[in-house]
Amino acid sequence: MAEEVKLLKTWSSAFGLRVVWALKLKGIPYEAIDEDLSNKSALLLQYNPVHKKIPVLVHNGNPISESLVILEYIDETWKQNPILPQDPLHRARERFWAKFNDEKLLPSAWGAFTKEGKDREEAMAATMENLKFVEEELKGKKFFNGEKIGLVDLVFGWLANLISIFEEVTGFNIVGDGYPLLSAWMQEFSELPVIKDTWPPRDKMIIKYQALYDKYHPAK
Amino acid sequence: MAEEVKLLKTWSSAFGLRVVWALKLKGIPYEAIDEDLSNKSALLLQYNPVHKKIPVLVHNGNPISESLVILEYIDETWKQNPILPQDPLHRARERFWAKFNDEKLLPSAWGAFTKEGKDREEAMAATMENLKFVEEELKGKKFFNGEKIGLVDLVFGWLANLISIFEEVTGFNIVGDGYPLLSAWMQEFSELPVIKDTWPPRDKMIIKYQALYDKYHPAK
Repeated sequence: MAEEVKLLKTWSSAFGLRVVWALKLKGIPYEAIDEDLSNKSALLLQYNPVHKKIPVLVHNGNPISESLVILEYIDETWKQNPILPQDPLHRARERFWAKFNDEKLLPSAWGAFTKEGKDREEAMAATMENLKFVEEELKGKKFFNGEKIGLVDLVFGWLANLISIFEEVTGFNIVGDGYPLLSAWMQEFSELPVIKDTWPPRDKMIIKYQALYDKYHPAK
Repeated sequence: MAEEVKLLKTWSSAFGLRVVWALKLKGIPYEAIDEDLSNKSALLLQYNPVHKKIPVLVHNGNPISESLVILEYIDETWKQNPILPQDPLHRARERFWAKFNDEKLLPSAWGAFTKEGKDREEAMAATMENLKFVEEELKGKKFFNGEKIGLVDLVFGWLANLISIFEEVTGFNIVGDGYPLLSAWMQEFSELPVIKDTWPPRDKMIIKYQALYDKYHPAK
């Protein structure tokens, strides 16, 4: 049967990008449908009525939402170039860190970017604390899963892209010299061809994040 | 090899209970270690340094944290009485609803229980809206996964236990007659022997939740 694979995403979303990377790693051709989140398509509302969010993967007409759920689906559907290891304990560890990214690290960094005053300081401290766990997890490894990238690399991938944009827009130093293993990983990860080819253009990202920053921190 | 299975939990936590149910369904003997969350044990802090939360499953010395991660681990480690179906699309659907519970439904209900005024009204409206999705998902099914209970039943299990306690403590009507399929499921689910045997005592739960309610809504 001819496969029909569509991906509803945006040009810049970290949640969409991780799915793009997974499909590219597996070598699955797909049709990309870029959504305008300020004017959501009927397709997006039909396919993800609960969250009304991207990404949505549509495989032979069946929609799958929530990026971590999509990554597991992709790994179970197309077996080549596994994203998750075989061993249940290692799989649990990967899932743990993926959840950690989405529920702790990313929200803390977003807080540091959007909040003000004491709330911002707290969010920044939480981000630094969370990054320490990431640094610890990289000890003795090239990628989070060992020699090849896997689920955790895809999920932490936004760090390699966004942190330096956050730093440029806010003027804050986030990673700096304090996280040498993470810095090395960011370098390795961003040089992978599959990542390089799909990275959103830096100048466009700076414009987007500068506008967001100005929205959250209007001139007094 | 003799298996060593320990579970750090509390007597009342919904996140701990779903792991208890999974272990019982699989017929895995385990040692239960009840934590006092106001005075966390050295073991809990050692095994889950990131979140410092229960449940933690310790299998042959290896700790696994985060209840949804634990449920997947249990299903992959002990194959009998599967918690997840085989088909990738069905698996994705189960994972989607499990995440929906933890990230939308449970937080909205908790907000309805703990907040006041307009915030409470909003949380209550969100809870009702979220329960509509649950009701819809039960159409034509006895359990969420069909004829036998699976991941989504375990994750939504707290509804069958806590909703009536919330209702008794707050005086609010939450499920009432508006969700007939959910009401029928709550009945079916709570009558399963594995659930009945592990249900926390209702009188103790009422005392716990009354005290929590009084803490969040002190007399003016």
